[in-house]
Amino acid sequence: MTLEGFFSPDSVAIVGASRASGKVGRIVLENIRQGFGGEIYPINPGADEIDGLKCYPDIRSAPPVDLAVVVVPAAAVPDVLEECGAKGVSNVVVISAGFKEAGAANLETRCVEIVRKYGMHMLGPNSLGFISTYSDLNASFSASGAIQGNIGLASQSGALCTAILDWANLRGIGFSTFVSLGNKADISENDIINAFLADENTNVILLYLEGIKEGRRFMDVARRATRKKPIIVIKSGRTRAGARAVSSHTGTLAGSDAAYDAAFHQSGVIRAASVEEVFDYALAFSYQNVPSGNAIAIITNAGGPGVLAADACESLGVPIATLGDETIQKLRSSLPPAAGIYNPVDVLGDATPDRYGIALDAVMGDNNVAGIIVLASPQAMTDMERTAEIIADASKRSEKPILAGLMGGGMVEGGRRVLSENRIPNYEFPERAAGAIHAMIAYAEIAAEREIDPPDLDVDCESVRKLLDRVRGRGDGRLGVECLSILEKYGIAVANSEIAATRDAVIDSSDRIGYPLVMKVISSEISHKTDVGGVRTGIRNAEEAGVVYDDMMHRIGRYMPEARVGGVLIQKMLGGGREVILGMNRDPQFGPVIMFGLGGVSVEVLKDVTFRIAPITEKDAEEMIREIKAYPMLLGIRGAEPSDIGAIKDSLLRFSKLCTDFPEITEIDINPLLVFKKGCAAVDIRLTLEEQI
Amino acid sequence: MTLEGFFSPDSVAIVGASRASGKVGRIVLENIRQGFGGEIYPINPGADEIDGLKCYPDIRSAPPVDLAVVVVPAAAVPDVLEECGAKGVSNVVVISAGFKEAGAANLETRCVEIVRKYGMHMLGPNSLGFISTYSDLNASFSASGAIQGNIGLASQSGALCTAILDWANLRGIGFSTFVSLGNKADISENDIINAFLADENTNVILLYLEGIKEGRRFMDVARRATRKKPIIVIKSGRTRAGARAVSSHTGTLAGSDAAYDAAFHQSGVIRAASVEEVFDYALAFSYQNVPSGNAIAIITNAGGPGVLAADACESLGVPIATLGDETIQKLRSSLPPAAGIYNPVDVLGDATPDRYGIALDAVMGDNNVAGIIVLASPQAMTDMERTAEIIADASKRSEKPILAGLMGGGMVEGGRRVLSENRIPNYEFPERAAGAIHAMIAYAEIAAEREIDPPDLDVDCESVRKLLDRVRGRGDGRLGVECLSILEKYGIAVANSEIAATRDAVIDSSDRIGYPLVMKVISSEISHKTDVGGVRTGIRNAEEAGVVYDDMMHRIGRYMPEARVGGVLIQKMLGGGREVILGMNRDPQFGPVIMFGLGGVSVEVLKDVTFRIAPITEKDAEEMIREIKAYPMLLGIRGAEPSDIGAIKDSLLRFSKLCTDFPEITEIDINPLLVFKKGCAAVDIRLTLEEQI
Repeated sequence: MTLEGFFSPDSVAIVGASRASGKVGRIVLENIRQGFGGEIYPINPGADEIDGLKCYPDIRSAPPVDLAVVVVPAAAVPDVLEECGAKGVSNVVVISAGFKEAGAANLETRCVEIVRKYGMHMLGPNSLGFISTYSDLNASFSASGAIQGNIGLASQSGALCTAILDWANLRGIGFSTFVSLGNKADISENDIINAFLADENTNVILLYLEGIKEGRRFMDVARRATRKKPIIVIKSGRTRAGARAVSSHTGTLAGSDAAYDAAFHQSGVIRAASVEEVFDYALAFSYQNVPSGNAIAIITNAGGPGVLAADACESLGVPIATLGDETIQKLRSSLPPAAGIYNPVDVLGDATPDRYGIALDAVMGDNNVAGIIVLASPQAMTDMERTAEIIADASKRSEKPILAGLMGGGMVEGGRRVLSENRIPNYEFPERAAGAIHAMIAYAEIAAEREIDPPDLDVDCESVRKLLDRVRGRGDGRLGVECLSILEKYGIAVANSEIAATRDAVIDSSDRIGYPLVMKVISSEISHKTDVGGVRTGIRNAEEAGVVYDDMMHRIGRYMPEARVGGVLIQKMLGGGREVILGMNRDPQFGPVIMFGLGGVSVEVLKDVTFRIAPITEKDAEEMIREIKAYPMLLGIRGAEPSDIGAIKDSLLRFSKLCTDFPEITEIDINPLLVFKKGCAAVDIRLTLEEQI
Repeated sequence: MTLEGFFSPDSVAIVGASRASGKVGRIVLENIRQGFGGEIYPINPGADEIDGLKCYPDIRSAPPVDLAVVVVPAAAVPDVLEECGAKGVSNVVVISAGFKEAGAANLETRCVEIVRKYGMHMLGPNSLGFISTYSDLNASFSASGAIQGNIGLASQSGALCTAILDWANLRGIGFSTFVSLGNKADISENDIINAFLADENTNVILLYLEGIKEGRRFMDVARRATRKKPIIVIKSGRTRAGARAVSSHTGTLAGSDAAYDAAFHQSGVIRAASVEEVFDYALAFSYQNVPSGNAIAIITNAGGPGVLAADACESLGVPIATLGDETIQKLRSSLPPAAGIYNPVDVLGDATPDRYGIALDAVMGDNNVAGIIVLASPQAMTDMERTAEIIADASKRSEKPILAGLMGGGMVEGGRRVLSENRIPNYEFPERAAGAIHAMIAYAEIAAEREIDPPDLDVDCESVRKLLDRVRGRGDGRLGVECLSILEKYGIAVANSEIAATRDAVIDSSDRIGYPLVMKVISSEISHKTDVGGVRTGIRNAEEAGVVYDDMMHRIGRYMPEARVGGVLIQKMLGGGREVILGMNRDPQFGPVIMFGLGGVSVEVLKDVTFRIAPITEKDAEEMIREIKAYPMLLGIRGAEPSDIGAIKDSLLRFSKLCTDFPEITEIDINPLLVFKKGCAAVDIRLTLEEQI
């Protein structure tokens, strides 16, 4: 849906407007009247006028309405929505609570049905409403309005909305639109992202989410948006305790956090670890340009804060720029001899504002420098206000982002005010400035990424379809080595294998495969095959193959007489190679989550694995391989031969396609995929099919 | 040294006091006069009086002086110190700069010599001075004074001092003593810690350090102090960029960060990651009791902030308490039906202050709850001031720490003021409250630890002494397998080995050791023994041993004709066992840093290792083993047999003693130590001896 015009109506009706001061219906009316220049129609059957405004008994009797703000009790909301629909109202905000969050999911579903029937858009229910500073419209229950600015915010927690608004107002931080999402029954974060993307007054998008409604769509919408505007999200329910608190608070099913991390990463969304980080980042994006490069300069009037900033930058992976010779010369010739002319540039404790100006001009002109952190602590000669003005002037002469850290309390208040007026973000502590520039650098890379689709791959979808249709509904949906051929159809190399169900067939197959070989029993009912002698390695000739087969059938017949056996797999025994794992399971929000890691201890003990949502791009596949800590092992270390990383990448892409093409596959583990110096081969697989629907 | 009386003099002389306003000598004088009740003697040869105070031409002519504050130019300081010494002044603060930090290390050394000669104590040089709120004495160059409180702060950066003071004053945070350490030529952080430990007005110790002067002493001093009072440190120069900035800023040689981390951990010092964290923690310790337990309760009037707090707690390892049945009953019967009565307790958006009171009393009385985070966001019915009063009242009824998070800006200002007046720490964002309670829980464990010395171990120190004395000064100090016996003398099991230097001796030794065995050439000049055929495994009998020996000597003679060969080591070849590494190198600040990790990939690729400063205690050894990520592998997983963890622990303790007993050993690697189901055995060693001094 497109929300065009939702936040900029010409006329607003308040259904449930009230005369009684302190009541929601009164507060909302007052908030709207405060600045809104369009038509305002209070709706209340018991009043002729409220505070001088003509009041209508119901929405039908009012003039045409663009937006209806509904504050009547929950039970009355469906009727109001019906009336709105009949009247031709396009947009509604339902502030009333008492729906899904209070156990009344049916009531909420009815509302959605009515809204959809009439093609309306609904924000809420259980929303605080919204504030649009460019429409001068505070259609909310919030006690305070918002300052005009370029940040668009949408929050799933109303309480967080009020707190954030109050906090931002105190610091002069402005918003374009401020949206309380409520229960997201109709309008979701996805619609809001699209609206913010289209809104020319919005440059930065902030989201507080407890869950995501349609994961795939979120990824598509966010990926498109983040190429143009940064999205910063704080997603709660990160840990188990948090997740419990979410589910007791809303009806949202929180997806697993690894899936969220992958989805955010793949769609270019920056995930903040705390509310404070959200603001630190938002301030930087709202006020300054994104850097075109990643190395930064630090200017300080004291060593200590400079070191703290440098420490924080380096631990975040932000390089401290090596200043060019010309810059060094400029600094050497114009700063006192005791000054630090390398980066961090220390203009010394007795630095006048002008000295800051000299240092700023020098580093701003340096091609090695993409952004600047300027720190000042109150010392003998420090004139904070004037220093702030010098920083502001410098910022006007350069496209490079400047972040300030005026450190202190009352003594730096004036300087902070000057910075805020001039849209220079200021951070109380140097580590937070470092965090913000790090987010900007990360975003610069996201914005520069070309949009690439998963590669076209030649696969035999039809054969896999037939194979799955044949086995689906039989047994418990769990498949083993017998379905290795599925991988082959998708172009993933598989160790040479044949299925044989009789002694003679075993010997024939063995001779064809060649020795040494491995024999594995085929039975979904035997999960620990090794325990019952269902896996035998190192079979050297046909005679041995026959004996092993007899013995295997005998043992299984004895230990697991009820197990249905579908024969045995005869597989070429491969020497060498490094074990890796490709896995997939389905996340309720995002669908297929692909996992990659090295086999054995790496996965089971060290949890050294990485995740992406399928389908993945070539870049995703490359990142997955490089991201695991054990990556150097794939490159070959300590004399070991390197693994064929191209083959792993190709297998990952094909695996991703398989998982995408067949939603009925709920889980797969290829464990191990053996990777050689050249090529690779899947040796074992477990696959679970969804019950027939 | 003991600094008794340093911060509480009866008389203070200001050497270099000045009439000219704005000059350091004037500002210091004015700062001292502002509150100090004792005698004040300005010293200035060119003035009879300054601002109504009688002025003396030199310190000799003044009445007796307890503390001299020196602000004369650097070159004049030694003479002033001589005069102070001759006069019998006990303590001096040298504010003057222009010493080691400006390249004049000799001048600084002269000052220290004079100070030591007279048994004086000197703070600085290049110090901002100090503020003692309980003596009403601001003997500093700082523009603002400090509020009285129970935090003792010492900072190596003067600029950070001013910023912190200004910041703290704005927030009403008080200090007992505020010390700018300057160049630490005489008084160091260690002396200050001891002074704060002895000071009854100090409950919390904050340190900003760029380096530590005497690492071993710091550990001893801090370990003793942290049993009584928390020490929170921010140590800069954490990363390479930071370390560069430090060394260009002070003369301090920054130790490696792993050594600092180990030293802080072993001495119970809490390391903060940022200046903000220092304050967050300090506020909690300054205002509230340390919890006696680790599970916490969260009370909130909105789901969102509650989830964020729970997320942050869990990711820090702080358990969210399971509330007792009685508590649940209390909450159920007294809160509205929609309230969240499990933890987090959600008192709902329309919560009155009284409802907070009910929830607070219920969870405070719960034995499962050790501490409480109370969150409030400004909503319709929220009365922030009254809520803050209720929190303050509750806090008076309980020993359990309460941390508040009133969220917002102007709307919560009144509430924050009430909290501050009542010594309830308040955090702007829920994640920071979680961080602070985490630090309190960590400290509670530190404070409860019994002081344990390294265990007494039966070792043969004399034999090792003799052996080292024999080889020291010969060659380049590098030893290999030939010194495995050193480990044996210290009770660390070694694979059965003998050294042989002739063919006959080789065969004799081989027969004694038994087969299969390993032969390794002994030569410090051959560092890659395998490359020249200097290591051979799997020797099965005497004949083979002879042949291998001949071949080995032949090859080495051919490829490395100049290498001096000390024979070969004949070693029992051990089957199975897991490889671990015990290593040591010497940190300039802290001495022997012991490393532990699993052999091979774990160390080289994954850097999965852990460090402690020797000597280590049993607890340290146990922690080291458990800390590595691969620890589960030692317990035995996937059918592998468990490793003898007791044997590793014993080896670590003995290794630590060896490294402590012989400072001339600069590096050792025992790689690998093979660990079996029962017992272990060192197989190879590299050891470097310091050049003879």
